[in-house]
Amino acid sequence: MSELAKLSREDLKKKHDDFVARHAAFAARGLKLNMARGKPSPEQLDLANDMFDLVGRDNFTTAGGVDGRNYELLTGAPEARALFAPILGAPADNVIAAYNSSLALMHDSVVFALLHGVPGGTPWSKQATKFLCPVPGYDRHFTICERYGITMVSVPLRDDGPDMDVVERLVKDDPAVKGIWCVPKHSNPTGAVYGDATIDRLAAMNAAAPDFRIFWDNAYALHDLVDGVRIANILEACEEQGHPNRVFVYSSTSKITFAGAGVGLFAASKENVAWMTKAMSARTIGPDKLNQLRHVRLLKDEAGLREHMKKHRALLAPKFERVQAAFAEALEGTGVATWTKPRGGYFVSLDVLPGCAAKVVELAKQAGIVLTPAGATHPYGKDPDDTNIRIAPSYPSLSEIKDAAEGIALSVLVATTAKLLERQR
Amino acid sequence: MSELAKLSREDLKKKHDDFVARHAAFAARGLKLNMARGKPSPEQLDLANDMFDLVGRDNFTTAGGVDGRNYELLTGAPEARALFAPILGAPADNVIAAYNSSLALMHDSVVFALLHGVPGGTPWSKQATKFLCPVPGYDRHFTICERYGITMVSVPLRDDGPDMDVVERLVKDDPAVKGIWCVPKHSNPTGAVYGDATIDRLAAMNAAAPDFRIFWDNAYALHDLVDGVRIANILEACEEQGHPNRVFVYSSTSKITFAGAGVGLFAASKENVAWMTKAMSARTIGPDKLNQLRHVRLLKDEAGLREHMKKHRALLAPKFERVQAAFAEALEGTGVATWTKPRGGYFVSLDVLPGCAAKVVELAKQAGIVLTPAGATHPYGKDPDDTNIRIAPSYPSLSEIKDAAEGIALSVLVATTAKLLERQR
Repeated sequence: MSELAKLSREDLKKKHDDFVARHAAFAARGLKLNMARGKPSPEQLDLANDMFDLVGRDNFTTAGGVDGRNYELLTGAPEARALFAPILGAPADNVIAAYNSSLALMHDSVVFALLHGVPGGTPWSKQATKFLCPVPGYDRHFTICERYGITMVSVPLRDDGPDMDVVERLVKDDPAVKGIWCVPKHSNPTGAVYGDATIDRLAAMNAAAPDFRIFWDNAYALHDLVDGVRIANILEACEEQGHPNRVFVYSSTSKITFAGAGVGLFAASKENVAWMTKAMSARTIGPDKLNQLRHVRLLKDEAGLREHMKKHRALLAPKFERVQAAFAEALEGTGVATWTKPRGGYFVSLDVLPGCAAKVVELAKQAGIVLTPAGATHPYGKDPDDTNIRIAPSYPSLSEIKDAAEGIALSVLVATTAKLLERQR
Repeated sequence: MSELAKLSREDLKKKHDDFVARHAAFAARGLKLNMARGKPSPEQLDLANDMFDLVGRDNFTTAGGVDGRNYELLTGAPEARALFAPILGAPADNVIAAYNSSLALMHDSVVFALLHGVPGGTPWSKQATKFLCPVPGYDRHFTICERYGITMVSVPLRDDGPDMDVVERLVKDDPAVKGIWCVPKHSNPTGAVYGDATIDRLAAMNAAAPDFRIFWDNAYALHDLVDGVRIANILEACEEQGHPNRVFVYSSTSKITFAGAGVGLFAASKENVAWMTKAMSARTIGPDKLNQLRHVRLLKDEAGLREHMKKHRALLAPKFERVQAAFAEALEGTGVATWTKPRGGYFVSLDVLPGCAAKVVELAKQAGIVLTPAGATHPYGKDPDDTNIRIAPSYPSLSEIKDAAEGIALSVLVATTAKLLERQR
């Protein structure tokens, strides 16, 4: 398609009317599709159904002989900690397996930091606290900050991670900057993968706050759509650069096994893990070890885990391809939208003409497609340019995805041609 | 046995030497028994083993059609909330089913109160905050307060609940008093059951703090050893007395199904539940609904729950009887010890001559019996009289219990006769 902004007003009006008519016809089909959240599809969940049979009345004990039904093992079943250790890049002793998701571990880390302070610092609740937020980013990270009055400072996210010139300056100059949210591999939502240089600079940079922490949410560590995506080990990098306590690493099996009944994972330095363990000990006697055993027996070891993820890839890759194909067909060359081609993760990030994102989400809704609210990818839910939309292709079936992507593309075309007409007025 | 304090020094010395010799002989048997924690026995856990078979690849959806494997249902599976509602004394809409234990719900309530404030108040972390602690009480309640710098004020616990004259005075006069810990039925460790008058006074009393909360840990709601133990409904009482938001009610299935893989429960007024739900929403997308479905299908309804608890009673009652028999035989009439005869719950509370409790725990350890540390039943782990010891008879087998109780009794006799000899010096 030709670049829409270059059309005459008359031609643009004609196009717009055509898009509006096609959008109305699409909406009339009464589809009900949800692409709002990174939610695994039933077929993906089915991949882990063997878990239902792997713990039962005859095999509920850990390898060390602990009755999985009873109390104990605050930091998780040792075999679960060992299984996930290579993925987190830490020795098993520095891994905690707890809760049914990593969001809860991130939340509690912030809460414990607010009320106790992290090693090397005092309680964050007693001082001005800021977090750097690479944008676009993950809305649930931002919600934690907003809920607890942590000031969020946006930092541009590039293809190889946050703009490190900006990060280094902010962290060096301002002792109130206590943290940064990072989704290093297949960033939510752009799919950015942090480069080695970015990771080195994060590990090495000077921080005015002695208790500065990187919140390293490696949720998509194993969630590749193509071969050979690797990132550097942030724990090792921090250790080598003389900042062993700088990073909290998180992951989970929410998008490996069951989204609502997975295992949350935390890894850090020995001192950080001791701090987290002590903090958690006031809250719980131990996690659900039976569910951890189900995971260990399904996934077995790192090789088993990687093998399992290939099955996810086989289900997800065609969905992402359909989105790419539909966007390319409808939007390529129009000049009104760009979108990411992620090598993994759960999202496609779509940027439309400034001032159009909220309208696109609204039009998609009218067409029967629920998207993440516009602005959600930015702190306080406010995208200053109203430009970014997060697309989550995992949940709808393959046959629904083409419809959904076409409906979104039509919504983009309606909203952006309206904006271009408005500009020409 | 005759009252030891009335013996002549010579006779007392002879007794003491005899107790020491018998204690040494007991220790030489090399037993390894643990009565430190209220931990269900393997036989009790076996009662819920059917849970392993009740959720599988063909039946993982809730009655409302939600895939239990996926995200959603922040406040729990509706059928789980409904199942436990009568036990909590609240309508199902005012019940939250979350986490694998109620301790985490209590902890998070305190944390949310510290950082957000509860309805009707401002963040507790920004003001002096005190909790009333009926003593002897539950060490994990006290740990939450201690960890977060909440000042604990001890209040005597009577057979029908805390000394309400003291409670009313402290709550009326001091706006810093924000909470009170209550285990209303089969109190930990004394087995006290709150009387109707106590509950009425708790609901009706004037509180200087508008955001005062009763933390009502009804962990042993169904855990009776005799028939007909009932307490008044605190939620209804607070509502009737014009303080609908005054109470947070907790319970769990930790001692109904699997201690480490149970369901935590919270109930309160509509406003409190909305507050808790919002606070939780920054932490988690939802609980492990599969495990909740296992519970619903095992226990079915209130009648099923009560039926299930009869099986626990059949296992626990003989253990409590053996402790009573052994203590009666060894200690009755000696004047050096008194102990409770609980009508339910998980503990026997043993009081020995002042200044002897820590020594008894140490002697029991030498005899191969691990007890809860002396002092644990008091705030800051400090029993001012060094008098109280908590005995947890649930975990050891029936055949071990008699040994254990005899070993404890011998330890009491050694320690207290030593103390009496010391006094006579």
